[in-house]
Amino acid sequence: MEIKVVRKVLDANDTMAALNRKMFADKGIFVLNLMSSPGSGKTTTLEKTLARILPDVKCAVIVGDICTSNDADRLARTGAPVVQINTDEFGGDCHLAAHVVGKAAEDLDLDHIDCLIVENVGNLVCPAEFDIGEDARAVILSVTEGEDKPVKYPLMFRVCDVALLNKIDLLPYLDYDREAAVTYIRKIHPQMPIFELSAKTEEGFGPWLDWLKDQVSQKLKKDR
Amino acid sequence: MEIKVVRKVLDANDTMAALNRKMFADKGIFVLNLMSSPGSGKTTTLEKTLARILPDVKCAVIVGDICTSNDADRLARTGAPVVQINTDEFGGDCHLAAHVVGKAAEDLDLDHIDCLIVENVGNLVCPAEFDIGEDARAVILSVTEGEDKPVKYPLMFRVCDVALLNKIDLLPYLDYDREAAVTYIRKIHPQMPIFELSAKTEEGFGPWLDWLKDQVSQKLKKDR
Repeated sequence: MEIKVVRKVLDANDTMAALNRKMFADKGIFVLNLMSSPGSGKTTTLEKTLARILPDVKCAVIVGDICTSNDADRLARTGAPVVQINTDEFGGDCHLAAHVVGKAAEDLDLDHIDCLIVENVGNLVCPAEFDIGEDARAVILSVTEGEDKPVKYPLMFRVCDVALLNKIDLLPYLDYDREAAVTYIRKIHPQMPIFELSAKTEEGFGPWLDWLKDQVSQKLKKDR
Repeated sequence: MEIKVVRKVLDANDTMAALNRKMFADKGIFVLNLMSSPGSGKTTTLEKTLARILPDVKCAVIVGDICTSNDADRLARTGAPVVQINTDEFGGDCHLAAHVVGKAAEDLDLDHIDCLIVENVGNLVCPAEFDIGEDARAVILSVTEGEDKPVKYPLMFRVCDVALLNKIDLLPYLDYDREAAVTYIRKIHPQMPIFELSAKTEEGFGPWLDWLKDQVSQKLKKDR
């Protein structure tokens, strides 16, 4: 019975996600769902990403957290419009649901946005199960978390379209096997683009920004 | 309606947790529920902990993962009895539920165990909601995850009895404010013991091991 109810919740979410997807498509907005464990560097990656693409790409951000507006405050400093969601208003949810994202999007001027990045709640498990109407999903894995997370949390790496291996500036101080990490990701998702980078030093940021800008321009072309 | 059903699931879990708690008390076993984000160092901390207390304290471990037996394989090398739970058999659950722990405990020789450590699924959100019949709860936070996790994931820090700040060997390479981290924890849980340590180098391990051994002997006294 528990399973049936979970199924119903997921079905209701899919319905809302489809509405979001149509709304974003009508406005020609590329939507990225950014997910990771707590502390993998979602916000710092976004700060640096926005700073570098904002002149060319009109971006906005929806940030999900259980509590606090710390991340939204940091991101607002980039100049991008930011909407904060606190899931403790929705029972402390461990993920962003489609209706919550849809509601947050009402606070944005969608006519003047080309790229919407949704920073999900820090959790490598549950957010992978909830479609929010995005065009693509990105997972960040910090190298400090070890190599084997893709095989231990396979759903996240299966549903994502791109993986960012963050904090490579710490590699000299870690027992971390780069090849093993890539092999584990390929085992779960053979074709997934993988970008190794440091949100702190911006090393390796170029290919990731190129990927993102390419996704946005493909979407703009498709919708015109 | 969704909330009602979640309530029912949690109520059923509480019933099972009470049964576990009675079973462990009858055997005089101290049970620790060890929780953290993915990659915070639960398994390494446990490996080093077991290696140092096993001569004095009869320990066993139940390890929860969505997939793989990587952690169980590592922990079995310490010589402690280890039971692996893979939650993908239960729909890929993001936490250990009480009935799952109770079932795993059937595979252990409870008459010859003083301390059972349950390594939960790597997730800083959901496991905090599920009582498994433990005596105490520990949360590990890696310093690489940043200082503000306690206020962003407050439930975990509210329900835990002790906090381990792990990977302090990396402090020289991080922008991490030790005082801020402690202040944030104290804001959520003023009296919580905090141990700053490195599971890699074993720096700071003494006070943590003393705390754990003290908990085990208090339990042994109480049950005799």
